[in-house]
Amino acid sequence: MAVYTEVSDEALRAFLAEYELGELLAYRGIAEGVENSNYALKTGRGDFILTLYEKRVDPADLPYFLALMEHLAAAGLPCPTPVHGRDGAALRQLAGRPAAICTFLPGVWPRRIRTEHMAPLGDALARMHLAGRGFAMRRANALGPAGWPALLERCRALADGIQPGLIAELDAALAAILAEWPAGLPEGQIHADLFPDNVFFLDGPDGLPRVSGLIDFYFACTDLLAYDIAVCLNAWCFEADYSFNVTRARAMLRAYAALRPLSVEERTALPVLARGAALRFLLTRLFDWVHTPPGAMVTRKDPLEYLRKLRFFQAAAGPEALGA
Amino acid sequence: MAVYTEVSDEALRAFLAEYELGELLAYRGIAEGVENSNYALKTGRGDFILTLYEKRVDPADLPYFLALMEHLAAAGLPCPTPVHGRDGAALRQLAGRPAAICTFLPGVWPRRIRTEHMAPLGDALARMHLAGRGFAMRRANALGPAGWPALLERCRALADGIQPGLIAELDAALAAILAEWPAGLPEGQIHADLFPDNVFFLDGPDGLPRVSGLIDFYFACTDLLAYDIAVCLNAWCFEADYSFNVTRARAMLRAYAALRPLSVEERTALPVLARGAALRFLLTRLFDWVHTPPGAMVTRKDPLEYLRKLRFFQAAAGPEALGA
Repeated sequence: MAVYTEVSDEALRAFLAEYELGELLAYRGIAEGVENSNYALKTGRGDFILTLYEKRVDPADLPYFLALMEHLAAAGLPCPTPVHGRDGAALRQLAGRPAAICTFLPGVWPRRIRTEHMAPLGDALARMHLAGRGFAMRRANALGPAGWPALLERCRALADGIQPGLIAELDAALAAILAEWPAGLPEGQIHADLFPDNVFFLDGPDGLPRVSGLIDFYFACTDLLAYDIAVCLNAWCFEADYSFNVTRARAMLRAYAALRPLSVEERTALPVLARGAALRFLLTRLFDWVHTPPGAMVTRKDPLEYLRKLRFFQAAAGPEALGA
Repeated sequence: MAVYTEVSDEALRAFLAEYELGELLAYRGIAEGVENSNYALKTGRGDFILTLYEKRVDPADLPYFLALMEHLAAAGLPCPTPVHGRDGAALRQLAGRPAAICTFLPGVWPRRIRTEHMAPLGDALARMHLAGRGFAMRRANALGPAGWPALLERCRALADGIQPGLIAELDAALAAILAEWPAGLPEGQIHADLFPDNVFFLDGPDGLPRVSGLIDFYFACTDLLAYDIAVCLNAWCFEADYSFNVTRARAMLRAYAALRPLSVEERTALPVLARGAALRFLLTRLFDWVHTPPGAMVTRKDPLEYLRKLRFFQAAAGPEALGA
C-alpha cells in the first residue's frame, strides 16, 4: 500500500504555502502505488496528487522523472504535470523526503483487461515514445539487463526455498537472454513499468475506453523503445490462467505500429525482450519476496507468476506468436 | 490499510447505474480506515466515498449505521450522508459484499493534536449526542464491558508472550472495572471510536480549526454517552510520551458541557469509563496482534500503548485529574 510517511499539519501547511494552490480542502492517503507515499489533495484550485518519494527512489533521479512528465504533458500526453511553486521549483522537501505535487488525472485503471483497452494502450505508448524524442535528459535503466546478474545474486541463497531448482532455471534463462540481447535498436524515453494500474481509462462518446492518464513514471529511463512493448506484453496480455492472449497483443501492436512502425530488427527481437521483461519482474518480485519482513505494510507479489510468463516466452515460436 | 476488495470495471459500472450520480470520472483506493475497503469516487455530480463492508462488519448492523449517519447529517452534523439509489436503497451489494456510497467530506484529520482542536471536538461530540436523541434504532455495544471478558479469554494463551504478567494485570484491571462500572447514566447513540483520524478539520476565518467531518460510524452503538468522552480522553489527550495532557481534556470537556452538561454521576464515573475505554482498545489491539498473520496487509497497532494509558487512569486521583 502506499502511505509510509505521515506529514504533520504544520509541515503540510508550510509546504502548500510555497504554491499558489488556494486553501487546503482535503488530504487523503491513496492506497495505490507501492514505492512512494501518495496523497490526494484538494485545494481551492482543484484536485492534485502529493507524492513523497520514499527510499527506493534515488533523489538524483527525480529531476529526470519530473522533467520527463512535464515534457510529455506539454506534448499532449495525459500524464501528471508537476506543479511549480512560487519560486519556480517543482521538487522540494516535506517531512524529510523529496516531494512534489502533480496534477490529478481522471479515469479508472482496468481491474479486468478487455481487448478494447489494447488499441488505446498501444496508441498511448507510441505517442509517449514519439513525444519523448525531443527530451534531452538521459537515465540509464537500473533494472535493465546490466542490473539483472547482481539482482539474481542477491536472491541466490534463498530463492530455492521458494521453488527447488529455481536458481538453476534462472541462471540458464539469464545467460541466454544476455547472449541474445539486441544491440542497435531504437532508443528513447520509456515508461518501463506500464502495468494496468498505471493506465487510466474513461469511456469515449462511442462507449469505447480511451486512455485518460499514464501515471507513475518512477521507473522511466532511456532504453530500447521496444522493451516498453515487451513490458506491456507481460503486463497486459496474459489471462488469469497464464495463457497468452494473442488477440490483445495484436491489437496493442497494431495501434502502436500505426504511429511508430517497428523495424524488422525490433520485431525480431520482441521475444527476447519479452523474456527479459519477464525476468526483470520475476527478479524484483523474488528480491522483495525474500527480503520483505513479515508484517510489513506492503503486499508481496508472487514472483512465480513471472516464471510462468518467462517460460511462455521461451517456448514462443517467434514474433508471430506474440502478435507481432 | 484499506483496500481488501477489488471491484471489476463491469461490476462498478453496473453498481453506479443504480444511482443518479452522472458519469464515472475517477475511482481510487483510499489508504485510510482499517475495517473496510474505501474508494474515493468522482462522478459528474461530485466527490463521494464508496465503502465495501468487509468481514469484520456484521451486515445486520449496516441499516443502523447508515440510518444513524443519515439522521445525524439531517440534524446538521458534518457526517457522511448515504446516497440513495434510484430504487431508494442506500445499501446494496458489490463484488459479493454489502456496499454503500456516502458523500465526501472536506477537511484533514490532525496528525498532531493541538489544544485548539479540543473545543471543536468536544462541541461536535455533544452535538452528535444531542442530535442522536431523536434516533429510535438501538445497537448494543459489542465491544462494551459485556464483551471484554470473552475478548480477554481469546488472548489469554498468547498474551504473556507479548509481556510477562500481562494477563494477570488485565484480569485484575477488568475485574475492578466491571465491579465499578456505573449503572443509570444517560444513554444514547455514541460513536465509540472517535479517534483523530475520524475527525476532519478545516480552518475557520479566524484561523482556528473547526470540525468539518465526523466519519467512520462503524463502531457506533447505543451506550453511555459519557463513554464516548472516555474514548476521546484515551484517543486525544495523551502526548507521544504517554503523559496525559489535562489542558486538552479540560478544553474538550468544557466545550462538551456547554452544550450538554455532565451530571454529577457522569463526572464521577469518568475515571472508570476511561479505564474501560483503555482496556477496550488494549484488548482489541491485543487480539489483532496475536491473531494477525505475518505478511497481512494490515498495520498492527501496539497494544501496550493502551496498557500505559490504562495504568494512568488507574492511578488518576479523580475526575479533576482528567480535566473534568
